[in-house]
Amino acid sequence: MQDKYIRLAHGNGGRLMRELIDSLISPYLPKDLDTTLDASPVPVRSGMEMLMSTDSFTVQPLFFPGGNIGHLAVHGTVNDLAVSGAEPSHLTLNLVLEEGLAASELEIVMAGFAEAANAAGVKVCAGDTKVVPKGQGSGIYMVTTGIGWKSPELELSMHCIQAGDKIVVSGSVGDHGIAVMMAREQFGLSGDVKSDAACVLPFTRVGRDISGVRFMRDPTRGGVATVLHELQITTELGIEIDESAVPVKPAVRSVCDLLGYDPYYLACEGRVVAVVAAEHAEALVAQWRALPDGQEAAIIGEFVAAQDGVWLNTPLGGQRYLEQLEDEPLPRIC
Amino acid sequence: MQDKYIRLAHGNGGRLMRELIDSLISPYLPKDLDTTLDASPVPVRSGMEMLMSTDSFTVQPLFFPGGNIGHLAVHGTVNDLAVSGAEPSHLTLNLVLEEGLAASELEIVMAGFAEAANAAGVKVCAGDTKVVPKGQGSGIYMVTTGIGWKSPELELSMHCIQAGDKIVVSGSVGDHGIAVMMAREQFGLSGDVKSDAACVLPFTRVGRDISGVRFMRDPTRGGVATVLHELQITTELGIEIDESAVPVKPAVRSVCDLLGYDPYYLACEGRVVAVVAAEHAEALVAQWRALPDGQEAAIIGEFVAAQDGVWLNTPLGGQRYLEQLEDEPLPRIC
Repeated sequence: MQDKYIRLAHGNGGRLMRELIDSLISPYLPKDLDTTLDASPVPVRSGMEMLMSTDSFTVQPLFFPGGNIGHLAVHGTVNDLAVSGAEPSHLTLNLVLEEGLAASELEIVMAGFAEAANAAGVKVCAGDTKVVPKGQGSGIYMVTTGIGWKSPELELSMHCIQAGDKIVVSGSVGDHGIAVMMAREQFGLSGDVKSDAACVLPFTRVGRDISGVRFMRDPTRGGVATVLHELQITTELGIEIDESAVPVKPAVRSVCDLLGYDPYYLACEGRVVAVVAAEHAEALVAQWRALPDGQEAAIIGEFVAAQDGVWLNTPLGGQRYLEQLEDEPLPRIC
Repeated sequence: MQDKYIRLAHGNGGRLMRELIDSLISPYLPKDLDTTLDASPVPVRSGMEMLMSTDSFTVQPLFFPGGNIGHLAVHGTVNDLAVSGAEPSHLTLNLVLEEGLAASELEIVMAGFAEAANAAGVKVCAGDTKVVPKGQGSGIYMVTTGIGWKSPELELSMHCIQAGDKIVVSGSVGDHGIAVMMAREQFGLSGDVKSDAACVLPFTRVGRDISGVRFMRDPTRGGVATVLHELQITTELGIEIDESAVPVKPAVRSVCDLLGYDPYYLACEGRVVAVVAAEHAEALVAQWRALPDGQEAAIIGEFVAAQDGVWLNTPLGGQRYLEQLEDEPLPRIC
């Protein structure tokens, strides 16, 4: 592409737009993607249930330790399909570019997107690019919508959860939220916290195969606390979390202590929270710990019939109530 | 919802976000849509090919004579599936809301969305809402991604086009572009041009059933001229358009003459351009004219082997070359 920065004309459907797509977008998408089609064929997998999921990505900054918005755009949708028990196959991609965006930044984001899509084994089948005037966007917004295929025998649902079921996390919580906040440098802090952004398919494939797994979710916006509250409201059971069992990286803990954050509200982008029958919980943790990035998997709590709400059992033997997220979570990361 | 304006906290995944979704979004989506799911099941239609399409909507202003961004968000994706020969069934919806947006505006847009979705017979199966800081959006951006089902016997492709084939439009061109421009009031003009925004399924259903229809497209961004250039480049045939045959509403023609626009570059949001074997062209036009909004359907030109490029035969007997859109089209409408 001749221009070093995105211009409004790159979104007008004409020659410059074709140049943008041919030089900065198509090279990072499957070679057989036909960008002249209005709609693309997607092969149906017979005997499987089809699932569909969508997510929008408005993270600031676009780049952070451990990834960029391009990686997130794949993981966000792929992980939603994965925790639902599906094997994702296809994605659509929407780009909303802000006038003035550096072409080199778009290129890095698209390379991140391609890297994550290849790692997850998903193929882009359709897309759309718009350019908005300067001051009406934030560099790049992305949307992905995905298709996945689930065995009709597999049942995962909040409604299967019973008192006594255990709550398991696949790794440390809050890394992504703190990594994004540090990348903003707004607090003058520096550190080596890396985002946990990753495809969770290795974890959910294990979860699909272990009987007794009732439900899985990736704790993104609103963090683990928000997942627990949704579970509590839907099941009408109480939840008790053993605070000392929740894996939190020391660097994440330090930043949280310093700024008064609670890591349970911070977004993860590569973790799974699973609910599993008590007798199978150890098996799940053992298999998750054997995976790369799974060493910190742990049972963190359980469902109880005897009380209402979400409670943390503190290391000193007390209990504190985990509030439902209401106002602005700090840091805003999506 | 208590707040009259959207706040950042409405996008944080917590209680306020649930309130926003329950009060302003869910009421306009199917009653059986489960907003607690990470991914939604979509029934597969056996014996049919599945097609997928996506589009982003960044139109300014959000409201214009004949519709709003909510209508467009349905038509854009439904029409792409329709011109591909498919019957659309499901949509996903992404909302990127700007902090400070009036709740009442969101409500009107969602009502428009619901109206258009019901008219097109498509069902929302998944969605996502994000809130971006004031000055990083433009009120509302929308993305829809759709699934449709096509008979495997139907073949529609630019590659089927031959010299002698006729080019047909389903109605007047440029109405949407001019309606949006007038709604901006930036030129101090007023008039009664209404957008053509509509679902084109009635037209494409006819097109599917008439043998000899090679290809259909809805001329949105870049207008009819951009469709013709894509056809010319792909087929490597020449195109001759009879300028006096192209339906342009008098009010649209007046504004174009006044401001120096060419209606062929203006977006339509409810028209179809079809390529059809010469012997079936009259049948297609006759059936299209019998439809509501189809009275102006017309054969506007044909493919010729003898010359290169896209040419307009002018009413005075001359020829002028229709340039490929390069720079900023005025008015910007997407």
